[in-house]
Amino acid sequence: MSYKFLDKINSPKDLKKFNKSDLPEICAELRQETINIVSQTGGHLGAGLGVVELTTALHYVFNTPKDVLIWDVGHQAYPHKIITGRKAKMLTIRQKDGLAGFTKRKESKYDPFGAGHSSTSISAALGFAVATAQQKQNNKTIAVIGDGAMSAGMAYEALNNASVTKHKNLIIILNDNEMSIAKPSGALSTYLAKLSSSSSYLNIKNFAKDLLGKMPNIVQNTVKAAKNHAKEIVIDSVSGNNIFEQLGINYLGPIDGHDVESLVEILGNIAQIEHEKPFLLHVVTKKGHGYDPATASADKYHGVAKFDVKTGTQKKSPSNIPTYTKIFASELIKQAKKDKNIMAITAAMPDGTGLTEYAKHYPERFFDVGIAEQHAVTFAAGLAAAGLNPVVAIYSTFLQRAYDQIVHDVAVQNLPVKFAIDRAGLVGADGPTHAGSFDLSYLCSLPNMVVMAASDDQELINMTYTALNYNAGPIAFRFPRGSATGAKLKAASKITIGKSRLITQGKEILILSLGTRLAEVRIAAENFAAKYGFSPTIIDIRFAKPIDKTAIKQQLKTQSKILTIEEGSIGGFSAQINELLNDVTQKTIVKNLFLPDEFIDQAAPDEMYQMAGLDHKNIYKHLLKLHNAKL
Amino acid sequence: MSYKFLDKINSPKDLKKFNKSDLPEICAELRQETINIVSQTGGHLGAGLGVVELTTALHYVFNTPKDVLIWDVGHQAYPHKIITGRKAKMLTIRQKDGLAGFTKRKESKYDPFGAGHSSTSISAALGFAVATAQQKQNNKTIAVIGDGAMSAGMAYEALNNASVTKHKNLIIILNDNEMSIAKPSGALSTYLAKLSSSSSYLNIKNFAKDLLGKMPNIVQNTVKAAKNHAKEIVIDSVSGNNIFEQLGINYLGPIDGHDVESLVEILGNIAQIEHEKPFLLHVVTKKGHGYDPATASADKYHGVAKFDVKTGTQKKSPSNIPTYTKIFASELIKQAKKDKNIMAITAAMPDGTGLTEYAKHYPERFFDVGIAEQHAVTFAAGLAAAGLNPVVAIYSTFLQRAYDQIVHDVAVQNLPVKFAIDRAGLVGADGPTHAGSFDLSYLCSLPNMVVMAASDDQELINMTYTALNYNAGPIAFRFPRGSATGAKLKAASKITIGKSRLITQGKEILILSLGTRLAEVRIAAENFAAKYGFSPTIIDIRFAKPIDKTAIKQQLKTQSKILTIEEGSIGGFSAQINELLNDVTQKTIVKNLFLPDEFIDQAAPDEMYQMAGLDHKNIYKHLLKLHNAKL
Repeated sequence: MSYKFLDKINSPKDLKKFNKSDLPEICAELRQETINIVSQTGGHLGAGLGVVELTTALHYVFNTPKDVLIWDVGHQAYPHKIITGRKAKMLTIRQKDGLAGFTKRKESKYDPFGAGHSSTSISAALGFAVATAQQKQNNKTIAVIGDGAMSAGMAYEALNNASVTKHKNLIIILNDNEMSIAKPSGALSTYLAKLSSSSSYLNIKNFAKDLLGKMPNIVQNTVKAAKNHAKEIVIDSVSGNNIFEQLGINYLGPIDGHDVESLVEILGNIAQIEHEKPFLLHVVTKKGHGYDPATASADKYHGVAKFDVKTGTQKKSPSNIPTYTKIFASELIKQAKKDKNIMAITAAMPDGTGLTEYAKHYPERFFDVGIAEQHAVTFAAGLAAAGLNPVVAIYSTFLQRAYDQIVHDVAVQNLPVKFAIDRAGLVGADGPTHAGSFDLSYLCSLPNMVVMAASDDQELINMTYTALNYNAGPIAFRFPRGSATGAKLKAASKITIGKSRLITQGKEILILSLGTRLAEVRIAAENFAAKYGFSPTIIDIRFAKPIDKTAIKQQLKTQSKILTIEEGSIGGFSAQINELLNDVTQKTIVKNLFLPDEFIDQAAPDEMYQMAGLDHKNIYKHLLKLHNAKL
Repeated sequence: MSYKFLDKINSPKDLKKFNKSDLPEICAELRQETINIVSQTGGHLGAGLGVVELTTALHYVFNTPKDVLIWDVGHQAYPHKIITGRKAKMLTIRQKDGLAGFTKRKESKYDPFGAGHSSTSISAALGFAVATAQQKQNNKTIAVIGDGAMSAGMAYEALNNASVTKHKNLIIILNDNEMSIAKPSGALSTYLAKLSSSSSYLNIKNFAKDLLGKMPNIVQNTVKAAKNHAKEIVIDSVSGNNIFEQLGINYLGPIDGHDVESLVEILGNIAQIEHEKPFLLHVVTKKGHGYDPATASADKYHGVAKFDVKTGTQKKSPSNIPTYTKIFASELIKQAKKDKNIMAITAAMPDGTGLTEYAKHYPERFFDVGIAEQHAVTFAAGLAAAGLNPVVAIYSTFLQRAYDQIVHDVAVQNLPVKFAIDRAGLVGADGPTHAGSFDLSYLCSLPNMVVMAASDDQELINMTYTALNYNAGPIAFRFPRGSATGAKLKAASKITIGKSRLITQGKEILILSLGTRLAEVRIAAENFAAKYGFSPTIIDIRFAKPIDKTAIKQQLKTQSKILTIEEGSIGGFSAQINELLNDVTQKTIVKNLFLPDEFIDQAAPDEMYQMAGLDHKNIYKHLLKLHNAKL
């Protein structure tokens, strides 16, 4: 595509060459190009479309990268990437060797702080702002954070700390699109909605002009631009009475985040003020703004497949195979019908964790607590302590946020909380910030914790059932992102805790496989058998903790060469096995395959597992090595 | 001691037999007994003294344990323990086989939820309240949370979620003592102080009587009892304008938390109301109230040694040996003089982490962010990204709260944040909630992370120096609670990353020791040498990651029996070693000693390590076993 303005913009410097009156047209082009790109690549769309004007205004007004601009949850940063020199590479986004789907320090000097997880921007920005003061610099630091991200405790911790910390020129843009990924939950959202809908108005243009004159009284004002770029502003009659000012933050807003010229005026004025208290500008935007198929969609095209720009129709995956997420959710719904004590909890991911369907069936036993993983886990601990049967459905990478709550509130008290850990292992396009690499390590080291990993569809059903019917303590089961195998499913059956599953009784080499690497293990073993005329033994160990000592010891009678494999980092299942092997007197040769000691950049999951050496070819290589090794 | 009332009180039921007018005297006795006990046992005092009246009033009014009473940070629960049937055992508190220093589910039905870490109570209480609704019960759930604890993100997450979640009868008591452990930081504290000091008053007794009549308008009121039990109350002219009401919480207060009769009236009225919105009662108390030596002390006798009741003089430990904490802090102060980029961060523990002294020297480069570990770490990441040299000084157990921030903001971005991890390993009287058992496991599994453990005083100095001068990525060093060895100290010298330290070149068995277990290892090796005429080799490995492969491989040329030892759980240093050993072709016999797969109840640290099998006797046993093992 060719664009009148955008073709000439390869950096914020280029952007600044144009007149303010050109900005609406530039925004239209930037929006068009964002749609154009994501229609070809898939990825995050709605969030980016909502901040086209904000992105443009910020780079137009501020002196990036000297002024530090930090985007909370980098998936809204596509327009930002386009106008900060990465236009030509945008079609590689979220692909191997391409641009990341989030902001990334390695990628550009315009990305001072990377973010895949939400709610980190104010803390990081405060760090930069303090550094500015310390280094006697005068640049600004700007954090752009969504209203959904504001439900996370760490954002509040940062706000609470920001106003009492010595720093200079911290500006927080609250991008209020009344929508994080799903509908936002929590009292703060309700409160923000109230802020945005009350009051009478004054002329926003006059307000912008008057802004400097009014400083520092500006902090006592609330401002609002109505829909359709209404040019009115209100001075709130009661000063200092909103939640941000009570926390010591200068509050201004809400203003219309799609009126780029007014944004430029207001930001321009803010930029000229020296301030030692943080300044929060409340901007109201619409997720998916300017693209009808997005705004009409329930999730505002938060994350999309490739699509047709004209119709918005997404290219469906050709497969009808259900995802692991869906298989888990279906079984949960089934069990919840029988067990009225089951309570399902999500931290702002009802769709991603498959709970949306469950919520339709059991709205009274469904809890979306917002982006609040810490609270989610301790809330579940409370439910369990009161005798209910809570299951926390969560991505591995986000469960990291609740690690202390798992240790202190669940494991120490041995409470029967169930953890359904989705997106375990490498996750593909979302890259290293979203990899579920560590849950095996951080859970298997905890006393009282039972940790399972499903190797296929039926196993996931059985593990869901097993977990929901286990009451002796906490239990976790993990499963990967994406399509399951599509195998025909039987009704769930209960697995004895710690019991493994023999896949192939072979000889010489014992393979202990945890999770869905089992498919690759089978291929490697078949290739081995084709060459050597016999197969290694394959056990689907199922339990990373407690491991099936009986079965392993039985196998050790006939085999002393052992290969373990898991979709997680060092310190998880492998550590449990090595403890056992170190305690038996028998001499063994052991190879543990796990994720390597590096963060792997985005690629297709298969490619990532290949880079990680957990594909069938590398497994085969290690089978040969063990075969040739002398005991 | 004998008491007129207290001697007859062995449960809340007994308490209820007395008249309301007896309560002040009962409180006096309860306070006296709390002082009496802690003077003999040591432990937490100030917090308990502050809630004597609140504890009495809550048990007098509510029907515990059916009504669920959850104390945030159980160290304020000594008076609660005394009147819930544990009076006779109080002298065993914080000792082996005795009562825990915090609330504990195993200990009493009056402890529905245990808490050693702060800020968990609202989440847990919401769980109980939801369960109450689900089970169609009508009991109340009460969370008592301090103002300091309110600075943690998870408390905010819970508040934000509580008002939009379907539940019944959740009551939050905000115990505002303007003091958590240290002086509280953050905007919320300032705000609470403002709430407590503004406005005019009405009669609190009348207010209490009128309370029921005024419901539900009560939510629009703010109330205050002034010092010295002033009987006045204010009805705020602007309704719904405080931070809690903006978050959808019914707010009432502040009231005087030391006026037990008024407390009983107000709580009694609150107890009679059915409410679906959470109800927050803001109570103002004084930490250490009623005991002059405590109120006069800077830390309000937060945690004390045994002391003389009359004078308040604490029995000092006979030793003049400095703690590891102090050694770290002294070196930090020294380095901060040379390196102006050093910035030290604590999460509400300036004393505990030794930073109080540092803060006197470098107030501009000291940050107490409140109980906000998540923010602390990402704030440090921001500082590091901006080119400064941040060190997060924190207890191992509390660093758990910031695990995701370590992964996502520090390790993924490979930012040179320094972690000074205090209270690593078992900690003694504080028991399992405070054990620093897991940091080796959760840090060693992270790419880019360097992890050290100091084996003695000089090593700690060297590691502090090494970390502060390492800029290639994140680095952590851990050290235990308590006194160091008292060895004479030399100036710090830099350790090459990954380089171990040979302690004894022996033969047959290679001992790889991480951290301060080295002293026990030496004893065991000496005893072994006394019996067999030769010593095993001892290496102080220093680095749990990266391990010193060169030195280990060199030693493997002459030794194939290996014993490893660390003050941490499975999956840490041992996993790193086993990976190396599995990759060498040489046959080895390996024994990994680490913390066992259970939470160890409080005792003296030495006793705990004995229970954990990490004492010299057990090490010796394993040396014999290895000696006798055939390769």
